[in-house]
Amino acid sequence: MSNRVCISLDAMGGDHGPTTVVPGAAIARERHPELHFILFGDEAVVRPLVEAEPRLKGAVEIRHTTVAVAMDDKPSQAVRQGRGKSSMWRAIQAVRDGEAQAAVSAGNTGALMAMSKICLKTMAGIERPAIACLWPTVRGESVVLDVGATIGTDAEHLVEMAVMGSAMARIVLDVERPTVGLLNVGTEEMKGNEAVKEAARLLRESKPANFTYHGFVEGTDLGRGTTDVVVTEGFTGNIALKTAEGTAKQIASYLKAAMGRTLSAKIGYLFARQAFAALREKMNPSRANGGVFLGLEGIVIKSHGSENAQGFAAAVDLAHDMARHDLMRTIRDMLEQTPAVAAGVSAGLDASLAQK
Amino acid sequence: MSNRVCISLDAMGGDHGPTTVVPGAAIARERHPELHFILFGDEAVVRPLVEAEPRLKGAVEIRHTTVAVAMDDKPSQAVRQGRGKSSMWRAIQAVRDGEAQAAVSAGNTGALMAMSKICLKTMAGIERPAIACLWPTVRGESVVLDVGATIGTDAEHLVEMAVMGSAMARIVLDVERPTVGLLNVGTEEMKGNEAVKEAARLLRESKPANFTYHGFVEGTDLGRGTTDVVVTEGFTGNIALKTAEGTAKQIASYLKAAMGRTLSAKIGYLFARQAFAALREKMNPSRANGGVFLGLEGIVIKSHGSENAQGFAAAVDLAHDMARHDLMRTIRDMLEQTPAVAAGVSAGLDASLAQK
Repeated sequence: MSNRVCISLDAMGGDHGPTTVVPGAAIARERHPELHFILFGDEAVVRPLVEAEPRLKGAVEIRHTTVAVAMDDKPSQAVRQGRGKSSMWRAIQAVRDGEAQAAVSAGNTGALMAMSKICLKTMAGIERPAIACLWPTVRGESVVLDVGATIGTDAEHLVEMAVMGSAMARIVLDVERPTVGLLNVGTEEMKGNEAVKEAARLLRESKPANFTYHGFVEGTDLGRGTTDVVVTEGFTGNIALKTAEGTAKQIASYLKAAMGRTLSAKIGYLFARQAFAALREKMNPSRANGGVFLGLEGIVIKSHGSENAQGFAAAVDLAHDMARHDLMRTIRDMLEQTPAVAAGVSAGLDASLAQK
Repeated sequence: MSNRVCISLDAMGGDHGPTTVVPGAAIARERHPELHFILFGDEAVVRPLVEAEPRLKGAVEIRHTTVAVAMDDKPSQAVRQGRGKSSMWRAIQAVRDGEAQAAVSAGNTGALMAMSKICLKTMAGIERPAIACLWPTVRGESVVLDVGATIGTDAEHLVEMAVMGSAMARIVLDVERPTVGLLNVGTEEMKGNEAVKEAARLLRESKPANFTYHGFVEGTDLGRGTTDVVVTEGFTGNIALKTAEGTAKQIASYLKAAMGRTLSAKIGYLFARQAFAALREKMNPSRANGGVFLGLEGIVIKSHGSENAQGFAAAVDLAHDMARHDLMRTIRDMLEQTPAVAAGVSAGLDASLAQK
């Protein structure tokens, strides 16, 4: 049992709570039998669900709490009311205490980030945490960050995200030396805001040892998979992510309408229904569910609040991958092995301060 | 001929220059016989193309110039070399001089905006111009701005964009009282950066007379068509637009691959080919081509540089609509009729200055 991976779960998080979390955990365990879980939640609700899942037999410890963070709680309110006792806090705390290698919650993103920052603390050498997601592309997948942890950025934070995103890409995409792009409104050097231009200069000059800085990328490059990692500020990243989700839904609805309009189209649909099923699977956002909190002293994964059990299982898969391949150590190693980045950041800041 | 609409065209702009501009103008004139054009460009190239187009007979005046702005010229360089003499500048100047009611160019966006600002000047009461586009939605179309005129914003600029976008929506969407959303990372009041939060407060409190302030919208609302107008800062707006374009292309490539994979799918495709053609038409970005420069003392439309003649014709259609329904007067009226917005902006600025 040396390769046992233990994940703590906030059983009460998300729109559907334990009725999604428990079967989701079961699906993930079927794929990774080394998984074990600590489930935090209302035992009266959680236990019958766990007992109904043969795939979870002997793999779950339930820790009782009736305190749950609501989906619309403000982060400050959630921390005040849920610190130390809510299912969300305790799932994170299990990571801090070394009982679990990663925590997964489908709860309120703001509350999860606030609690994670307080409970786990920010990593040494990292200014602010970020949320990274896996973005489906025509070439496979890319790591995109920040998709909403913080609003506003500076060059230093963008450079840190390049390093952290590369560490995650090395694990999930299995590439030794990921390529990194900075999201911008054009690829020419003069384009963009000050933070992006300064980060580009730092990345270019510091010649990172563990990843390749590709240059600026645009919104169109996200779906194209031009780089393994795409770095951007949280406001823009969140809007880009939701715009892509919205566009995919929009096209799916056009397609559905087109295929039902004439008899000939309906017959065509019947012949091509397996192809459509494959397409639906490809476009299924659940496959890439899971936002990874990067830059904290521990691994926390956010599952989408409205996901079903398959979606939650994808988030657990991600937690498993990150724990199994030691994301924390990979980030630390990459930060250490790129002193040029750190030095470049300091030098850049000194230079920009000197100009003021 | 009282309803004659005259449009000036930069015949040398875009990846394909006059070979796209001239047939594009012809397509638009077939739809709107009241259209007349002043074409600026190299007469030796332009005249034979015009003479080959029976649909343009008697509707075109050619003004010769061999100076053209290159697609990769920096805006400052384009202004220095092209001021007063390039096809782009002279097309804009024709609007300033009252010869044309709108200008259309497929040239370099940065150069077109720089020249438009210098030649036409910013409208009274408007801080900075914006670029608006028509965004296809499941409900029809929305006006989205700014998609790349300026980087960075403040509350005042966002409020101005709400008014200008509403004026454009009134014309192109034919709604008397458009609804306006502010693009944000969530719909709750506490979400977003300071500019967005302050703009929301101003819009809520000023109770605009000509449009309805809906509240915050997210990236997913763009394709959904939740509001007639969506307002955002230029960096984020440009990335959202290109992300949607990229996602549409990505799904089209999945669809193509899926339909070619098995014999059954291929047969299905044959039966449904008209439905697919309708879908392709729906997803065709050329249909919604044309960025409208708002906030200048004249109408300038940017066509995408890589568009074909159909795409350029869509941009000319837009110019025709804007000129026909007097966009300039609509914006002025809406600004005047919403003194509360203007007052709110001043009060808000005073208050925020007082806090400093």
